[in-house]
Amino acid sequence: MHGEARFPQGLPFSTDLYELTMLQAYLDEGLHETAVFELFVRRLPAKRNFLVAAGLESVLQLLEALRFGQDELAWLAATGRFNAALIDYLAAFRFSGDVHAMPEGCVFFADEPIMRVTAPLPMAQLVETQVMNRLHYQSLIASKAARMVLAARGAQLVDFGLRRAHGEDAGLAGARAAFLAGFAGSSNVAAEVLFGIPVFGTMAHSFIQAHDDEAAAFRSFAAAQPERCVLLIDTYDTEAAARKVAALAQALARSGTAIRSVRIDSGDLAAHARNVRAILDEAGLRDIGVFASGNLDEYEIERLLAGGAPIRGFGVGTRLLTSADAPYLDCAYKLQEYRGRPRRKRSEGKATWPGRKQVYRYVEGERMDHDCVTLDDDAQAGRPLLAPCMLAGRRVRPAPTLAESRALAARELAMLPRRLRGLGEGAAPYRVEISPALADLATAFDRGNA
Amino acid sequence: MHGEARFPQGLPFSTDLYELTMLQAYLDEGLHETAVFELFVRRLPAKRNFLVAAGLESVLQLLEALRFGQDELAWLAATGRFNAALIDYLAAFRFSGDVHAMPEGCVFFADEPIMRVTAPLPMAQLVETQVMNRLHYQSLIASKAARMVLAARGAQLVDFGLRRAHGEDAGLAGARAAFLAGFAGSSNVAAEVLFGIPVFGTMAHSFIQAHDDEAAAFRSFAAAQPERCVLLIDTYDTEAAARKVAALAQALARSGTAIRSVRIDSGDLAAHARNVRAILDEAGLRDIGVFASGNLDEYEIERLLAGGAPIRGFGVGTRLLTSADAPYLDCAYKLQEYRGRPRRKRSEGKATWPGRKQVYRYVEGERMDHDCVTLDDDAQAGRPLLAPCMLAGRRVRPAPTLAESRALAARELAMLPRRLRGLGEGAAPYRVEISPALADLATAFDRGNA
Repeated sequence: MHGEARFPQGLPFSTDLYELTMLQAYLDEGLHETAVFELFVRRLPAKRNFLVAAGLESVLQLLEALRFGQDELAWLAATGRFNAALIDYLAAFRFSGDVHAMPEGCVFFADEPIMRVTAPLPMAQLVETQVMNRLHYQSLIASKAARMVLAARGAQLVDFGLRRAHGEDAGLAGARAAFLAGFAGSSNVAAEVLFGIPVFGTMAHSFIQAHDDEAAAFRSFAAAQPERCVLLIDTYDTEAAARKVAALAQALARSGTAIRSVRIDSGDLAAHARNVRAILDEAGLRDIGVFASGNLDEYEIERLLAGGAPIRGFGVGTRLLTSADAPYLDCAYKLQEYRGRPRRKRSEGKATWPGRKQVYRYVEGERMDHDCVTLDDDAQAGRPLLAPCMLAGRRVRPAPTLAESRALAARELAMLPRRLRGLGEGAAPYRVEISPALADLATAFDRGNA
Repeated sequence: MHGEARFPQGLPFSTDLYELTMLQAYLDEGLHETAVFELFVRRLPAKRNFLVAAGLESVLQLLEALRFGQDELAWLAATGRFNAALIDYLAAFRFSGDVHAMPEGCVFFADEPIMRVTAPLPMAQLVETQVMNRLHYQSLIASKAARMVLAARGAQLVDFGLRRAHGEDAGLAGARAAFLAGFAGSSNVAAEVLFGIPVFGTMAHSFIQAHDDEAAAFRSFAAAQPERCVLLIDTYDTEAAARKVAALAQALARSGTAIRSVRIDSGDLAAHARNVRAILDEAGLRDIGVFASGNLDEYEIERLLAGGAPIRGFGVGTRLLTSADAPYLDCAYKLQEYRGRPRRKRSEGKATWPGRKQVYRYVEGERMDHDCVTLDDDAQAGRPLLAPCMLAGRRVRPAPTLAESRALAARELAMLPRRLRGLGEGAAPYRVEISPALADLATAFDRGNA
């Protein structure tokens, strides 16, 4: 299974009913000309200076694989809500549209399309819910993880979030998004099995508690995991446990077995880390690292490291995979063009930029300077961020490997303007210009001239 | 497929690596005596006065179905991390333990076990991550949805959250949890297909935009959905659209077709609802309801209804399925007894109550008065909340239907003390007593006498 890098296939009916009722109406009316939908984020959450695109590969796999089987079609027919034209359409459904998108790992901002779907209207509409579900969550987590990567200043970060992620899907896709953004790996076994992401593990408190004696638990675990031994030392008394580890490590060292690190999961992590570091150093065990976990996020990581806590790695779980301080993005998948004519939604507070668009990035020195959103046919001097990845339902090129996407994310983070790299709000936002051509089109549309 | 009420089966390796490394050590040491683990929430989130248990049925289905196939075993062997004893153990794995739990829909509070797993130590440990993942998310969403149900005062609530839920799993399990808590249904087609949950749908802005004329879009949609027609009226100008709907409805009424409602998704919902209500009433269309959506949650629903906004139903999406103001619960699955002896974790801020426990509820009149957490063998006069649902790996009784669990949740919410029914913080918390027997055991354990 290793390295296949396939996302688990979803349910074809994980979609909103209105995708089917609109489909019925489109088929009844014969509205099957070319539509252009774009996915973008309307506003960055209050605590985000930038976002990181992720989820493209799982969307492309969905579009390649989406089929409606006999069970689904029988259910549809039995509801009595739909006619034979709709059922026949779904029975024959194969996605045959075009997809242009930012690559996974690309930094992006509000109002910038990160994916464009060009297809007959019924087809482009039908996939809305599933496309959004995948791009939204994975971009949300890659963006959260990137903040932790910047805060950690090179310390090792491991995803521990599966147990409180919102479902198994989220645990798996979140582990991948975090790795993409620079995490070293995940505790999630499925993430290694399916995506080849390095998997990490320590022990639970129950392991210590199941033994009558803490030192005996440490010895047993070291015997079972001689090469990757991480011992959890906060079940009863952290410093006392560190002394037991020191004694054990000195004994094990004589037999050639090394303990890799000790994990602290509760209490004042900075104080415990300093005490434990001193105990280990005094025993000559400078190679054993202190690893911290327990309700961590980028703010706490920054605080611990700024205070000089001697911590070499962090396990980050719940607050990563739920993006706890900003658990959703205000994203939308909107019709921007139909039958070659621009479209625009003007709802209050939710108006969109019409037309088929491209985003150009301008770099000064080694840093991003600003972006410009314009029409697709208004070529500019900057670097275009949306590239074709599927034409007529077929991939234009092989998918990048996860390692390649991870390397791209690292390059992108390195190019962030310094003011956007911090965690605080209040940094001057990144400049995203709307080109004169696009602004003119919006004005013309509103006057009824587009 | 309808009515089978089966959750999609997950991946056997959606688990933390440490479950496998601990398993290896338990097998090496022969630690296979009976362990008791309990799942509980340490603290309620700041904005919750109570929680609603959900997810039990999906946990029981997991425990019945969990198997490790040839692919998984081959992967394990190839890693070189585990020995043949572990691989043989997983190849033969069948969950054969006991499960006691609160029923789905039961109201619960901090420090109360909602599930107890009694099984040989390796077995009870192995399922930790998956059990937590399911109970955590579904209880999180049922608890959030219950607040919306209380705030809505009988107005119809529909889940629209799939697109921004954290994955497909979350969309489906969240739709079920919301329905359990009292929602009328969901936009998620899979929720009807798999669980028989009523599915609702309107139309997207793109449907209106795809037509050159808004009134033509309304006519087309009404023709395609004559029995369930809900028209979205905020794409361009809400009040102008309401007048178009009024004209169309009067024409349709002559042919016997009725529009059910109009949906407003942006702007000042209260003001638009009043204007639209007046337009419809003036046209004699009192049966057409106003349905509102757009970034809603229980606070906004309460505000709108308190202000007298004439809204008959609400579509609630992102903030429901991400539990946006409290996106996780501080829950834990902890070893409380091994080999017949109590166990206790004493980590700072995370100490647990030892032993195998039961929760008793005391009711005064028609309201919950307080609960008492005690040892399982300390029978009390109140109503015990944990009941056996699986013994030796087999269900004790058929699963309740979703309708039965939903009815239980409604009865539970009706019994909540009045001070806990509001959304505000600051209500005196519900009283959860620790029995003298349990307190004595904890003290004895800490003195090394338990």
